[in-house]
Amino acid sequence: MKPLNFYPGPSRVYDKVPEWTKEAFMKGILSINHRSNAFMNIYREVHFLLKTKLNIPQDYQIFYISSATEAWEIILQSLVQKETLHIFNGAFGEKWATYAEKIRDKANTQKLSFDYNTLPDFEKISHQVNPNTEIICLTHNETSNGSYLPEIFFQDLKQNFPKPLIIIDATSSMAGIDIAWQHIDIAFASIQKCFGLPAGMGIMVVSPKAIKKAQEIGENIRYNSFLNLLKHSQNFQTTHTPNILGIYLLLKSLEDVPNIQETEKRLRIQSKIFYSIFEQKRELSYLIENKTVQSPTVICVSGTENHIQEWKQKAKKQNIILGNGYNSWKSTSFRLANFPAIPKQEIELFKELILNTD
Amino acid sequence: MKPLNFYPGPSRVYDKVPEWTKEAFMKGILSINHRSNAFMNIYREVHFLLKTKLNIPQDYQIFYISSATEAWEIILQSLVQKETLHIFNGAFGEKWATYAEKIRDKANTQKLSFDYNTLPDFEKISHQVNPNTEIICLTHNETSNGSYLPEIFFQDLKQNFPKPLIIIDATSSMAGIDIAWQHIDIAFASIQKCFGLPAGMGIMVVSPKAIKKAQEIGENIRYNSFLNLLKHSQNFQTTHTPNILGIYLLLKSLEDVPNIQETEKRLRIQSKIFYSIFEQKRELSYLIENKTVQSPTVICVSGTENHIQEWKQKAKKQNIILGNGYNSWKSTSFRLANFPAIPKQEIELFKELILNTD
Repeated sequence: MKPLNFYPGPSRVYDKVPEWTKEAFMKGILSINHRSNAFMNIYREVHFLLKTKLNIPQDYQIFYISSATEAWEIILQSLVQKETLHIFNGAFGEKWATYAEKIRDKANTQKLSFDYNTLPDFEKISHQVNPNTEIICLTHNETSNGSYLPEIFFQDLKQNFPKPLIIIDATSSMAGIDIAWQHIDIAFASIQKCFGLPAGMGIMVVSPKAIKKAQEIGENIRYNSFLNLLKHSQNFQTTHTPNILGIYLLLKSLEDVPNIQETEKRLRIQSKIFYSIFEQKRELSYLIENKTVQSPTVICVSGTENHIQEWKQKAKKQNIILGNGYNSWKSTSFRLANFPAIPKQEIELFKELILNTD
Repeated sequence: MKPLNFYPGPSRVYDKVPEWTKEAFMKGILSINHRSNAFMNIYREVHFLLKTKLNIPQDYQIFYISSATEAWEIILQSLVQKETLHIFNGAFGEKWATYAEKIRDKANTQKLSFDYNTLPDFEKISHQVNPNTEIICLTHNETSNGSYLPEIFFQDLKQNFPKPLIIIDATSSMAGIDIAWQHIDIAFASIQKCFGLPAGMGIMVVSPKAIKKAQEIGENIRYNSFLNLLKHSQNFQTTHTPNILGIYLLLKSLEDVPNIQETEKRLRIQSKIFYSIFEQKRELSYLIENKTVQSPTVICVSGTENHIQEWKQKAKKQNIILGNGYNSWKSTSFRLANFPAIPKQEIELFKELILNTD
């Protein structure tokens, strides 16, 4: 039997993936040319569905990229001339900041970290921030610790910093959490998390303000330069031969899912089942205790090394895959994905199995 | 009915792709973590199969990348400090050279073009070449015009230029033509051509000499820097979440195919069927007339605009997909893929259908 998979990395994919792949094969879509009308029609359709299902504003553009990691690079090479600001509370946000220091300029990369059980205090931050910062880079949902940034945070951020582009790494939130697009200039994600598809593709959503900034800077020397991606996406094409199967799977899965508001609602209900499992266990707690910043899509359960090991063993016995803890929390936590492709029944089955294991 | 597809772009994929995808799904492989042992075992196995089936020397390393286009970039950013030389006879070779001019330095990018019906004359070239050139970039098989570089060419090249790295874009030859690795330092390809798989992944094969050069230069600031790719590949991992389905499909397809020598032999036999179709047609000829440089994997048929249009109509009537001509040959040629995933019967069926069409 296929294990119950709650890994928040490449994770549970939709059951129909094999069926959709077969359909793509039978229709000859796996072999269409990426400059053909057939491809452009698929691109157009996915574009439409992404906007409709994820409530993305009409004047935003969508690019296909290879991964969220590539998005870090694209943004740093095409959307900033000098100053960047990274505000983070976990491993992925910090990695992005470190990448900025490497491929840009350490002196012009400002890093502000905050505690993962709180939201940053803007009163305090405002004085620290370099007034010339051009972009503010954030991790919407920190997959490493299970915290997330609620809409209220972005409202405050925008009020305090109206000028820079607000950019979010939405790797484990896009397609799971309704993004407050009115406060966001760029959001990007990979399709192996909340999109419920096999790894190997990323999506980048960009606002008119981001486009304007890219045009002002004019950087366009790389194959993945923002302006090159923009030019091609406006023609419903890509800069190079893309993951056409991935794009087709995206089309089929988007046809199947409800509007993001409904999805988020379901995930919030599901997360309560997860929480109910561990709430009565005195040996376990949650890394994120502040409910305002508890992620609806990634749940991080913590405990002593022994207890975590014990629970991992319980899961293993039942053929259940938990996510390992990340970095410094490697041995004192495990993580659970609550992504849309995981049906409620599997979480209930998980509850039943894990509670009945010695 | 699925059309007969001879497009040399994304092209005919192996019939078993849906079955292999289903298998990957059932085994939970679409959801495995890319830092897990399960993934590393697959990586190791593909590594072994690539070396065995494609006769790649044991001391070469293999990287997974997103596309051949990305390989152009990786090479230009990590393997050269100043001078590059591009020798080309068609659109893709020229594009790579143009890319070098953009992301590096126009003054240090030397471009030498040669006629696609001949091989470059080394006597002549030697005097022109900048003696400090660090890499020589070539297109092994020019998908735009159907020419290719035979082994003898690389022997001469190596003799004349023993120092620089010899780098080939093998997009439409790797896995179809037996590459003379002893003369090659880097070869790269995408999997949607001779590998017969859905688009969305590339492979880069690198020699110890290339590794040494990268280490001497020491460039390692980007996520796709050569040294970062190397470090991860040595641990059977990737720099970021890769196209795991693509890697698994590669594993399954490599298990199925014979050694590359046999594949090339079959393709050469098949190409004769293609050639036999058009040989008696006075209105058509081949863009590449010199048999020494005629590609075994891409056949480019040329004629007047009217005649090409006529043949395209014939094909369309029979639900056959031909490749359009490329760039300047757009309306005066069409292209035919002779890739390993296309079975002999389909070429024979093509012959029958197209010869019996009014």
